[in-house]
Amino acid sequence: MSLEGVRALVFDVFGTVVDWRSGVAREAAPFLARHGSAADPAAFADAWRRRYQPAMEEVRSGRRPFTRLDVLHRENLEAVLPDAGIDPARVPPAELDALNLAWHRLDPWPDAVAGLTRLKARYIIAPLSNGNIILMTDMAKRAGLPWDAILGAEVARAYKPAPEAYLRTAEILAMRPEEVCLVAAHNGDLAAARRCGLRTAFVPRPTEHGPEQRTDLSPDQEWDLVATDFVELAARLGL
Amino acid sequence: MSLEGVRALVFDVFGTVVDWRSGVAREAAPFLARHGSAADPAAFADAWRRRYQPAMEEVRSGRRPFTRLDVLHRENLEAVLPDAGIDPARVPPAELDALNLAWHRLDPWPDAVAGLTRLKARYIIAPLSNGNIILMTDMAKRAGLPWDAILGAEVARAYKPAPEAYLRTAEILAMRPEEVCLVAAHNGDLAAARRCGLRTAFVPRPTEHGPEQRTDLSPDQEWDLVATDFVELAARLGL
Repeated sequence: MSLEGVRALVFDVFGTVVDWRSGVAREAAPFLARHGSAADPAAFADAWRRRYQPAMEEVRSGRRPFTRLDVLHRENLEAVLPDAGIDPARVPPAELDALNLAWHRLDPWPDAVAGLTRLKARYIIAPLSNGNIILMTDMAKRAGLPWDAILGAEVARAYKPAPEAYLRTAEILAMRPEEVCLVAAHNGDLAAARRCGLRTAFVPRPTEHGPEQRTDLSPDQEWDLVATDFVELAARLGL
Repeated sequence: MSLEGVRALVFDVFGTVVDWRSGVAREAAPFLARHGSAADPAAFADAWRRRYQPAMEEVRSGRRPFTRLDVLHRENLEAVLPDAGIDPARVPPAELDALNLAWHRLDPWPDAVAGLTRLKARYIIAPLSNGNIILMTDMAKRAGLPWDAILGAEVARAYKPAPEAYLRTAEILAMRPEEVCLVAAHNGDLAAARRCGLRTAFVPRPTEHGPEQRTDLSPDQEWDLVATDFVELAARLGL
């Protein structure tokens, strides 16, 4: 297994680089308490996240023009609050806006910054996330993620796993698809990238969905590279 | 003069952050010599650059769909070579491609990296250049420019000084125009940004066009801030 000929590593971010569940729960906890909700913050994070794919599917299907993720997250927040016993119409919009920025303040997995810093010595490194540019930029600045550029859905104007998200990213990099490797904790994302000709590296994140996680614990295809974390990924590449 | 309320500094790049004329001349010199041209490398850089605005005007006018700058530079190279006594049809395309990457390998002005590094402590910093994403990314990686994100024409799908280039950049940053400040060595760029509501900082680069430069030596409006270089700009902002 090697990545010969690869010049750019692009990364899934939610789950692969950052721990979205803990971060959203941490930010939601004081909000829920303040509004008298008994909802468990981690369960609230899961519920908010469950609306993520259906919201993007509206765009992928063409039923809705491209809309950036901050807007979808904000709509999804209003949709999920009643399940936590909170009427969004009774919360000041500025407070909802502030909670929506939870997604900008997620912590990286412990190996992420060190691994990315090593990988950056040889490769162009960039997010290929469904998160929008300012979300990724705020997150990187807070967490010290040393990206060379911010790529992803808003730049490609397409949400993964639509082929355009991968192919336009390679085109923007002025590279052939096989010169670009997607690093992700999700087999489905890697499968879509491989169908477009990208190389693939799997880094499992077995607690992304909490201690009971059953999905994406192991590779379901022979990906070009498999590593336990980003530091091992760098070491496997001789960095 | 201050920039109160500003959260992002966006930068013109060619001329403001990097010395394009010296860099292109340095890269063109061995090419010209190899092909028996007696053209002066700096004059060749000027001639190549003179075709920059007309090429973008084809896009701004709507006569041509958005086309990234690497492609325009490559076309302009073929157009300008005959004036240097070189028939582009007799040069291997890979050699023209390589020379076209001269624009990816420009050196920053001596104060640029130090100034940007200080400014980054408080502001989101990003290029708002007509250069495309991979051009800006390659340049930053080689030169150590510590951008938080790569913005500009390819992300906004519009070439400066079209208003969309500035307004879409603010929208992508999820900021009001007055929360964004353009830093540029060109009065015309700043004037266009101001018409869109952005704040403005002028940093003259009196040798961008060589020792005989007559343009943009001083501010022609009361810009929000004027500084001699990026380190002074940082100092003026208390950084």
